Amino acid sequence: MTNEGVHADQSTTSGAGAPPPPASAGPGTPPPGTRRPGGRTARTRAAVRDAVLHGLSDHGYPGLTIEYVAEHSGVHKTTLYRRWGGLEGLVADALDLAGEDTWTPPDTGSLEGDLRALARGVVDAFADESKAAAPTAFVAASFQSERAADALRAFYTERFSRCEAVVERAVERGEAERGTDAAALVRAVSAPLLLRLLITREPVGTALADQTAAMVLAAARAGAFASR
Amino acid sequence: MTNEGVHADQSTTSGAGAPPPPASAGPGTPPPGTRRPGGRTARTRAAVRDAVLHGLSDHGYPGLTIEYVAEHSGVHKTTLYRRWGGLEGLVADALDLAGEDTWTPPDTGSLEGDLRALARGVVDAFADESKAAAPTAFVAASFQSERAADALRAFYTERFSRCEAVVERAVERGEAERGTDAAALVRAVSAPLLLRLLITREPVGTALADQTAAMVLAAARAGAFASR
Repeated sequence: MTNEGVHADQSTTSGAGAPPPPASAGPGTPPPGTRRPGGRTARTRAAVRDAVLHGLSDHGYPGLTIEYVAEHSGVHKTTLYRRWGGLEGLVADALDLAGEDTWTPPDTGSLEGDLRALARGVVDAFADESKAAAPTAFVAASFQSERAADALRAFYTERFSRCEAVVERAVERGEAERGTDAAALVRAVSAPLLLRLLITREPVGTALADQTAAMVLAAARAGAFASR
Repeated sequence: MTNEGVHADQSTTSGAGAPPPPASAGPGTPPPGTRRPGGRTARTRAAVRDAVLHGLSDHGYPGLTIEYVAEHSGVHKTTLYRRWGGLEGLVADALDLAGEDTWTPPDTGSLEGDLRALARGVVDAFADESKAAAPTAFVAASFQSERAADALRAFYTERFSRCEAVVERAVERGEAERGTDAAALVRAVSAPLLLRLLITREPVGTALADQTAAMVLAAARAGAFASR
């Protein structure tokens, strides 16, 4: 898989509430001939981001070092310090970049279908260790770095904001009442899954995703998300 | 406040999904005349637990040291190593001890009231920094220590299991169908709050707690938690 493939992965598999998985290809500078949009600066940023993701996945935030990022990105340590300030800045920028992907929420034609796809997307984003490593490491970093916590909040805020399109379409179709609290609704459909994945470390799967979607759908139909 | 007060706090304020807050009194060995149930071993364990909670709250898991726990518990380092093995064992035992409290879920006479009290209890357990510090530190530790993660899972499993009494009583009163998935239901009422408190770091409050309780109640009434 080339580094271009990494970008493709991110726009298709990173569901609500899950920062994108790290490259499944090896870390390092893009191979010769790889093109990235945005020129040299964007290429450098993406290479550094890839190195940070791999470092977080392999060693976690406490084990991540500037030396590791320099070695795996091909970007000199002094450049890393000058442009990112240090490890906190590198992790925050990796999250910022993760939030700049083209992911959009599912559009299946019904609220039921969209909620189920959203919930299954969360499960899928953590389906195996290689996918789960980066989003888990970002959350771990947020407990040790204020800047990482701020970047994670910004990432989730923006990601959930995109998900609100699901509710807007449901209102247009007459499946949800105008004034439905979309922010609460889209968080409710991820929360029971993210609780188990990141806090209680309990198993999740398609059946739980579907049950969670059904819970939120039933509550929406009963008007439990009415804003006012 | 004496160290006895710590115990009282734990049985009254530690809600679903929230390990108990640390003592608001200063850390250290119990003052002269303080009685703890269970004799000298239990007293030592509790003093060590208090020191671990304070250390986690003040410095987080990466900053916690055996020296800190020894100094603040009055228990010698060699005893700590011999009985707990090291820091991971100390954190895990503090969580185990937190799970041995007498907390029981609210019993207000209705499913609606119980769910609202459960949700508000989660908000209350993180209501200010001194309350939030220990449960947050335990989750942080779970990202860095497998033993802490296992102990946290055991704590939450047991805590949520106690919460299922709320559903059992609702079934007896005819407010919920027999076969309701109580495990899923009690997690659903905490999850949107814990997501915001521990992962997205978004504000929570009584209004959100009530909305979350209303969502779960509506879903339960619609049969969305039917086990089969």
